[in-house]
Amino acid sequence: MAEPGLTRRRLLGGGAVAAGAAGLTWGTEHFARSGREPDPAAATEPFHGRHQSGVATAPQRHVTYLGFDLKPGVARADIIGLLQIWSGDAARLTQGEPGLADSEPELTVRPARLTVTIGFGPRLFTVAGVEAARPGWLRPLPAFTIDRLDPAYCDGDLLLQICADEATTVAHAVRALSRTVTSLVSVRWVQRGFRDAAPGQSMRNLFGQVDGTVNPAAGTTDFDRLIWHDGGGLPWLAGGTSLVLRRIAMNLDAWDDLDTGGRELSVGRRVATGAPLTGARESDDPDFTAVDQFGIPVIPPSSHIARAHHTGDTDRFLRRGYNYDESPAPGAVSNSGLLFAAYQADIESQYLPVQRRLAEFDALNTWTTPVGSAVFVLPPGITDPGGYIGQSLLES
Amino acid sequence: MAEPGLTRRRLLGGGAVAAGAAGLTWGTEHFARSGREPDPAAATEPFHGRHQSGVATAPQRHVTYLGFDLKPGVARADIIGLLQIWSGDAARLTQGEPGLADSEPELTVRPARLTVTIGFGPRLFTVAGVEAARPGWLRPLPAFTIDRLDPAYCDGDLLLQICADEATTVAHAVRALSRTVTSLVSVRWVQRGFRDAAPGQSMRNLFGQVDGTVNPAAGTTDFDRLIWHDGGGLPWLAGGTSLVLRRIAMNLDAWDDLDTGGRELSVGRRVATGAPLTGARESDDPDFTAVDQFGIPVIPPSSHIARAHHTGDTDRFLRRGYNYDESPAPGAVSNSGLLFAAYQADIESQYLPVQRRLAEFDALNTWTTPVGSAVFVLPPGITDPGGYIGQSLLES
Repeated sequence: MAEPGLTRRRLLGGGAVAAGAAGLTWGTEHFARSGREPDPAAATEPFHGRHQSGVATAPQRHVTYLGFDLKPGVARADIIGLLQIWSGDAARLTQGEPGLADSEPELTVRPARLTVTIGFGPRLFTVAGVEAARPGWLRPLPAFTIDRLDPAYCDGDLLLQICADEATTVAHAVRALSRTVTSLVSVRWVQRGFRDAAPGQSMRNLFGQVDGTVNPAAGTTDFDRLIWHDGGGLPWLAGGTSLVLRRIAMNLDAWDDLDTGGRELSVGRRVATGAPLTGARESDDPDFTAVDQFGIPVIPPSSHIARAHHTGDTDRFLRRGYNYDESPAPGAVSNSGLLFAAYQADIESQYLPVQRRLAEFDALNTWTTPVGSAVFVLPPGITDPGGYIGQSLLES
Repeated sequence: MAEPGLTRRRLLGGGAVAAGAAGLTWGTEHFARSGREPDPAAATEPFHGRHQSGVATAPQRHVTYLGFDLKPGVARADIIGLLQIWSGDAARLTQGEPGLADSEPELTVRPARLTVTIGFGPRLFTVAGVEAARPGWLRPLPAFTIDRLDPAYCDGDLLLQICADEATTVAHAVRALSRTVTSLVSVRWVQRGFRDAAPGQSMRNLFGQVDGTVNPAAGTTDFDRLIWHDGGGLPWLAGGTSLVLRRIAMNLDAWDDLDTGGRELSVGRRVATGAPLTGARESDDPDFTAVDQFGIPVIPPSSHIARAHHTGDTDRFLRRGYNYDESPAPGAVSNSGLLFAAYQADIESQYLPVQRRLAEFDALNTWTTPVGSAVFVLPPGITDPGGYIGQSLLES
């Protein structure tokens, strides 16, 4: 069980110095045999609430995304049963308690800010007989000429996004949530990622770039408007959102041939700081109108940030991606890339305009290739401990 | 560049409170925008020294082991060149500096206690023409009836063991060290692992057990005697050691059918605390002579710790393993296990007696299967910044 009251709020508040000292035990187990300090791995994120955790949550260090297929013969009642199991176990695991049929309860005592986020793919609505409640934008993205999609990383009827600051916690939660539902679903794909960031900076991807700078800030009116569905036309979805998960292979061999200047012109930001070429700090707004003494734009119009930048107040979303690094193919050095994860209230009006611009042209496309693509709606959170994620859809 | 002087010694000493507070920024990047605190990821481990780092080093959270094959036509001079490249780049990367031809220097500023440890497989001695200097025990382990070895995880001419507390650091070091030597070696296998531990406990494996309790403590006479080769008969190896890397698949589905009592009798320890069945704390010595009121041994003679326990003062070694968790095969729930890593001065007299006992009988064998096996000699460290790992062998 988690130490009662050792919430992240407390870690970040009055208990910071004591808990901070315990931070030194990260990875220094040989030097921390006294076992008397509170442990930052006891920190928890809420499961119950108006929204599911794992979206506005400060990104944890590790993720596993699992795509599942509903097995033949599964009906609406089975889906409800599965979501009840998942919701109950997610509520327990995220608070540092064993799942209902948990066989390794000792692996649950370090929640390490575990979040479990549940999503639905398009076909779930058909199987559950709730087609009329399916958002119009919940369908595979249109084909883009830049795509080289591998079906092994595409689509799926159900999603689990499992994040925590410790890889052991993620591994156990993945297993605990997968093994209880094998009669109803099969694993379609598993994608694992990691992210690390310097204090005051966004994470770095494996090109070395800071990644995810232009994000609405959690807790602001902008964030609430852009990320959480307001229920318009789909009352069941109020407080929910959507996820576009793109697996983007990064050609590090070719990228390595590009010098720093070339990289910065391709991205539109300084590599060292993440600042736009017209600014000094990562958080500075890029000035796309700035020109040099020859009248040439300082940030090339073909650069990634120029193409990706929102053109209005709607084509914006939350980026919360992770790096991946898998075993290379024979003869290759790397098999690396980004699990690009975009969250928005409406995929059609917010995500697709940006994706279309980038597919049409983005200097970075030379070195990146989308190899996987999946879309999910993420139902709202639940506040009733007896409820389950998806209840507003399946009992509406 | 690493912040000068922010060594682990300082983190663990006088600077603990300030650095500890920064420990809270792990995974809480959204809440740490000020960027003013020192960052625990700046902590470094030495590269130069009498021994290679990564053995006595307090285990970091992440590892990638890479096995390489020497390409046809490679000769001793090429091997020396490769080891010079690796030694130079390892010295830089571990201190938070870019490798010589590093294309992503910005990924080197968070060394996060990075260590790079270099090992030689049996065939390297043949290719380099130094057969006479090969330790007699440097050969594939004898076949055990419990083994179900997959050649994809066996053997290799060269080893890199790359450990750090951040996965991004490991990923970059793997690439930086692999890409510069593609003309000389090809990647034979890549094995990734992770470990997390509560303060005052050893890591837990994915069976939920604490793992690696019975270890000689770094810095003791026992450790020095058991782990570091004294150069007897092989002067070039003084201060070096060896690694047996076994990939051990763990059948979590079958393990989940076993109750807590059954697990504790199989292992000989309490699951919750890691204490032997005859003790109260993980660090307590097991009492194999203790019997219950019926005269039955409290720790079953068939249990893992009874079988694995050293019978004398020589069959001991250092365990420094990592968990692995990969994508499951179609229809399966998990593909998990342990990267069992044993370090000892002499494989024949220290490791093999234990391995033979366990292969003959170990209650845990019901749930575990060795699927990979590789042995390497780890040359001594170097103190000369102009030297290279393996110099005492290749220039002797």
